[in-house]
Order: sequence, then C-alpha cells, then structure tokens
Amino acid sequence: MPLPELTQIAQKLPEAVPFVGPEAIERKTGVQIRARIGANESGFGPSPRVLAAIREAAEGIWKYPDPENYDLRVALANFHGIAPDEVTIGEGVDGLMGLIVRLFIAPGDVLLTSLGAYPTLNYHVTGFGGRLEFVPYSGPHEDLTALAEAANRLKPRIVYVANPDNPMGSFWPAADIEKFIAAVPEDTLIMLDEAYGELAPDGSLPAIDTSKGNVLRLRSFSKAYGLAGIRVGYAMGPSRIIGAFNRVRNHFGVNRLAQAAAMAALADQDYLRSAKAAISAARERIAGIARDNGLTALPSATNFVAVDCGRDGAYATRILEELAQLGVFIRKPGAPGLDRHIRISVGPEADMTLLAESLPKAIKAAQAGA
Amino acid sequence: MPLPELTQIAQKLPEAVPFVGPEAIERKTGVQIRARIGANESGFGPSPRVLAAIREAAEGIWKYPDPENYDLRVALANFHGIAPDEVTIGEGVDGLMGLIVRLFIAPGDVLLTSLGAYPTLNYHVTGFGGRLEFVPYSGPHEDLTALAEAANRLKPRIVYVANPDNPMGSFWPAADIEKFIAAVPEDTLIMLDEAYGELAPDGSLPAIDTSKGNVLRLRSFSKAYGLAGIRVGYAMGPSRIIGAFNRVRNHFGVNRLAQAAAMAALADQDYLRSAKAAISAARERIAGIARDNGLTALPSATNFVAVDCGRDGAYATRILEELAQLGVFIRKPGAPGLDRHIRISVGPEADMTLLAESLPKAIKAAQAGA
Repeated sequence: MPLPELTQIAQKLPEAVPFVGPEAIERKTGVQIRARIGANESGFGPSPRVLAAIREAAEGIWKYPDPENYDLRVALANFHGIAPDEVTIGEGVDGLMGLIVRLFIAPGDVLLTSLGAYPTLNYHVTGFGGRLEFVPYSGPHEDLTALAEAANRLKPRIVYVANPDNPMGSFWPAADIEKFIAAVPEDTLIMLDEAYGELAPDGSLPAIDTSKGNVLRLRSFSKAYGLAGIRVGYAMGPSRIIGAFNRVRNHFGVNRLAQAAAMAALADQDYLRSAKAAISAARERIAGIARDNGLTALPSATNFVAVDCGRDGAYATRILEELAQLGVFIRKPGAPGLDRHIRISVGPEADMTLLAESLPKAIKAAQAGA
Repeated sequence: MPLPELTQIAQKLPEAVPFVGPEAIERKTGVQIRARIGANESGFGPSPRVLAAIREAAEGIWKYPDPENYDLRVALANFHGIAPDEVTIGEGVDGLMGLIVRLFIAPGDVLLTSLGAYPTLNYHVTGFGGRLEFVPYSGPHEDLTALAEAANRLKPRIVYVANPDNPMGSFWPAADIEKFIAAVPEDTLIMLDEAYGELAPDGSLPAIDTSKGNVLRLRSFSKAYGLAGIRVGYAMGPSRIIGAFNRVRNHFGVNRLAQAAAMAALADQDYLRSAKAAISAARERIAGIARDNGLTALPSATNFVAVDCGRDGAYATRILEELAQLGVFIRKPGAPGLDRHIRISVGPEADMTLLAESLPKAIKAAQAGA
C-alpha cells in the first residue's frame, strides 16, 4: 500500500541528532552524570534576577508570547547601538541558523565552513539540500586566509566563521575579522557566530556595523549569560536581511518566559561581569588540572578549554569514555587534526574537583586499554 | 554593489506576520487591552502545579533542554496509549506544521485545506514554495465530503482538517472523521489538527490509531491546558512519520521550562476538568451576551465562540474595531461566508463583564458608522 512520501530532499536525510544530550547518555549508560561539563553550559547559572523574572512571568504564561519579540529587540538594539529592525530573535542560535540556511541556500547551493566547526550548522545545510565545502583549521584556529581564498574561488552563498571558535576555544582579533570581511565577495553572506562573544578578550569583536550588507552576527544567551535551557539567540545585521527572517520564522516560537529571562539577563551586566570572572578562573583551573596530568590546555576565549591529549583521536576518545564512566560528561572534536583534543566546559568548584579526581584515573585506564 | 540574494522561493515571500499580536495592537493604537479575548488563550490559566513546576525548574535553566524531549514524550505516550516513538514535540503546533510541510511539500506540491482555515498553515505552505488548494466551508463546518472528493481529484500531498474547527468552533463526530480518513487516498497525509481536542464533546475524537500510515494528530498545550505562552505542541502518528521529524527539527528548540510545564499540566487532569467546566460556562456567558445584543452565537466545541453579526464582513469588522477602541481584543475570520462573524475567546468573569458592557456600544457605533 502506498504511503505518504517525504520530499526528495527529506528522503535522503538521516534521523540523526546533531548532539546526543547528557540525559540521553545517562539513559543509555545508566551512569549518573555528576559533573555536567560537556555542553559548554555555564554551571554558574544566570543572574538571580533572571530567576526572579521567570518566576514572576510564570503568572502570565496563559498568554501567547509577543510574536514580534518587541521589548527584547528594543532592549538589544539599545544595548548594541543599532535599530530594532536590525535585530531578530530565535529559538537559540541553532534555530536562527536553520532560518538563515533556508533563506539563502537553495538545493545545491554552497555553504563554506571549517572542517570540524559547528555540526548543527552542517545539519541545517544538508537538511535544506545545500552543499558543504570545508577548509581545514590552521592549528587551533579557523583559517581566515584560507576561508577568504576559498570564498573567492567557490563563490558560496554563505561563509561561516565562529569567533571565538568552538570546539577549539581560539579567537581572532577584531582586525583580522575585519580583514576577512573585506576579503569575502560582497554577495556572499558572512555568518559570524559570536555565541561566545561576551567571553572574548577585549578587542576581538569588531564594532557592530549594520551598514555592511553581507554580515550577520549571531549571539546567544546560552553561554556567558548562563541560560542554555531558555533557548534565545539573536542575529544582528542590515534590516534588509533581518527583515527577511519574518518571511519564514515561527513567529510565536520564542516562549514568554524566555523573552522575560533574556530581558532580565541583559539588564544585569554586573552579574555578567562576575560570571565572566568565575568562568575565567574555572578555565585556569581546568588548565591546571590538565597540566597536572601531563596534558596541554589550549588558550581559551570561551567557557571551555580544549585539552590536547597528546596522542591520536582514538586515545582522546578513550579518555572521554573513561571520564563518562566516572560520571564526568565532556565532549570532543571529531575532525582530523582536532580530534586528539577533549573539550572541557567550565563549572563550579565541585565539578572541577571531580574532574581533578577523575582525569588521572581516566588517563590510566585509557593507557591500559591501548 | 551586489548583495547576498535570497533563494528564489524566499524572494517571493512577504514579510508578513500571520497574526498581529495584542501587544503589537496596543503599541499601534495606544489603547490598552483590558479584555484579552481574541487569541483563543485561556484566561483561566494553567494548573497551579504548572506554575510551581516552572518556578522549580528555573533553577536548572543553565542546562540545555533534553533534545529528545524524552520524559515528556514518554508521559504523553503513556497518556494516549501509544509508543514513545509515535509522538514528537515541537515549538507549538505552529512549529510542528512548519516541519510537516517541509517534510512533505516540495516546491509546487499541493496542500488541500478549507478556505478560511488556519492561516499559519498557509504561511508555511507558501513559505516552502507549496501550492494551496481550498474547499469552502459548508456553513460553519469544514466540508469533509468536499475535502475527501477534492483529495481524490487533486491528489494533494497533505490534506488539512481541524476538529474542532477554528475559527468557527464547530466539530464533527468521530464517525465522520473516520469516514473521511477512509475516503482519502492512502498516500495523502492527513493532518488532523486537534489543538482544541481536549475541549471537544465526548465522541468527537477518533481513537488514536497509529497503525494508520497517513494520519498525523496535532495537539497543543496552548488551549485547554492554559499554556499558550510556553509553546509546546505535539504530533502523534506512525513511527515512520514521527521519526522523520528528527531529520529536520531544531532539536534543542523546546525549552527546559516548557518541557517541565507540559509534564506538570498533563499530570493534573483534575485541573483540566475544572478548566473545561470554566471554559464551558464562559462559552454560555458569551452566547448570552450575544443574544442580549440581538446577535447569534454559534455552538462551540472550543474555547471561543463565533458570533454571527448578521450583516456583511465590513459590519463585523466595524464591531471588532469599535470593541478594540474600548479595550476589548477579539479577532474575526476573513474568508467569504465566514467573515460576518466575530470570534470571542472565553475569559474570566471580569473579561465577560467588560464584553457585556462594551458590545452594545460597539454595535451602536458600528451602525452609526455604516
């Protein structure tokens, strides 16, 4: 009997989850996660004012959210010194990426990214029938020179750069990013992922310039603001592109509590400063733990630290698996050249203590298993 | 200077919001809404246990939500007597509709619906380059016979039916829906929108039968459960189709508080019963107010009442506009044949009192302006 058929594009897609969540890992392994330091969340949490705002907003949860996300857009526009129609809100940067790909990538169109960069973007590109082109990292850096060169050669519809980078934690100074932007063809959209932007060293984010017609900046409340669970990201750029999101977005997609939480988070920059200090201290702690175990921590401009395990990818994977058995949840890059690293997110001292206790055991077990 | 170009499909789309929110209306008119009874929300709100669950879950908001929505899927599967892989969660029914269209409608493919039925579905179909075919309502009912006939004639990829119906509030008994399902070609996906299902009279929802390969049932926490702001809808159907959502969905799209809220709402069926009683009483109240003003309230199986204003669409629009000036927010259908109605959502007695006070004034003003 014939059944409804998926579109040609959908038929070819796997039913894959870009990231298996820690809850799913717990269900699968039966091992309870005691240090949740694998998803670049912030165990330091959001401002107490955010929790108060959520609890207060709960009362009005019977109302649909404002589909225009107006108050939040105005607050963000004021914060960044741009116009409200130069910012749009989405269900996390993940959700925004899906919309950007949908708006600019028709089947067969090319998106250029780095080999080993954010997998969820690749998921969206494949999901809309687009074609991925990759440039390898240069050491721990996305290779801006090679990306610009490839952009001029391949003429992709979109080129993706994350600054600071995930999964390596590296960053480029603003001047390098600006040089990159100038070198990319003007009809190629530059998707500049700044999910870790609040954690970047001073001088690594170019000034927001919405007069540049082909640059979209992506920001998140999931990282420094400690609100991964709330699902709010935003994009800034020229109104011509920002307005286009309204053609395809799920207008009521960002829930009412999320809008209230993001407003409160943005308003408490004092808390953000203290969270950044705590994150910075935890990065040092991770680097120290790595050093104590003979591993090399890479410099990080994010809320995680890439740690070079010094052998091949299989060895790094074994360490990760052994840590999982000890209740320590971390992730690692899979791309060649990056895959000898494990990626450890910051967390409060209890998490760091468990990491310090567990890492020597995991290394020992990984070496024994070799 | 050339700029990044939208895809051919996206270029043709308007930057339209399917529904202008009450907040946007307030911003535009400067008139404060005092009775928010236009978006089929439930002013009776959710169970107090839901508010408690949200407030409790706030503490963990630094964590990403479970991308598999596992606990909620299992709870829903148990509740409906189906398997967990026969239910998927989305950012409201709106979000799920977008995914369904994306999975089944390639550019040029047809979705069959009723003229005047849910506009957001049409927005998604147009948004993916699909083609809409319409069957007129038969009185206040979606015309199942004509829809089945057209489905056999046009061979659409999807046929859409809402039961109970929005915007008219009518319903079909389960036997009629089952007859309809049997009459539609098996390779046409039947999108059965039951957003108002919890409010339907006994015997109007067919038993859940996931062995039927071409039926998807859509449910919402926005209506009877009083959680429009939380953005959780779900789809039930054969695992072959439910699994396909994993190919394209925004895996982390449903936020952490939303999952907790929906779990708590589902668990409190006692509250749901009391909310249904309050909604039913408010429907009677609206019908009485209509009658007092010489208007005809249609029978309703939902949380709103369609009121026939007895003249043409322009007259009904004038009444709606006059009500807006008095702080009463309602909406109305726009399709020919339906457009002489206004659609009034239930609300607590304060809202109903304001409606009772305002409606005579609005009618008088509408008549004077004619």
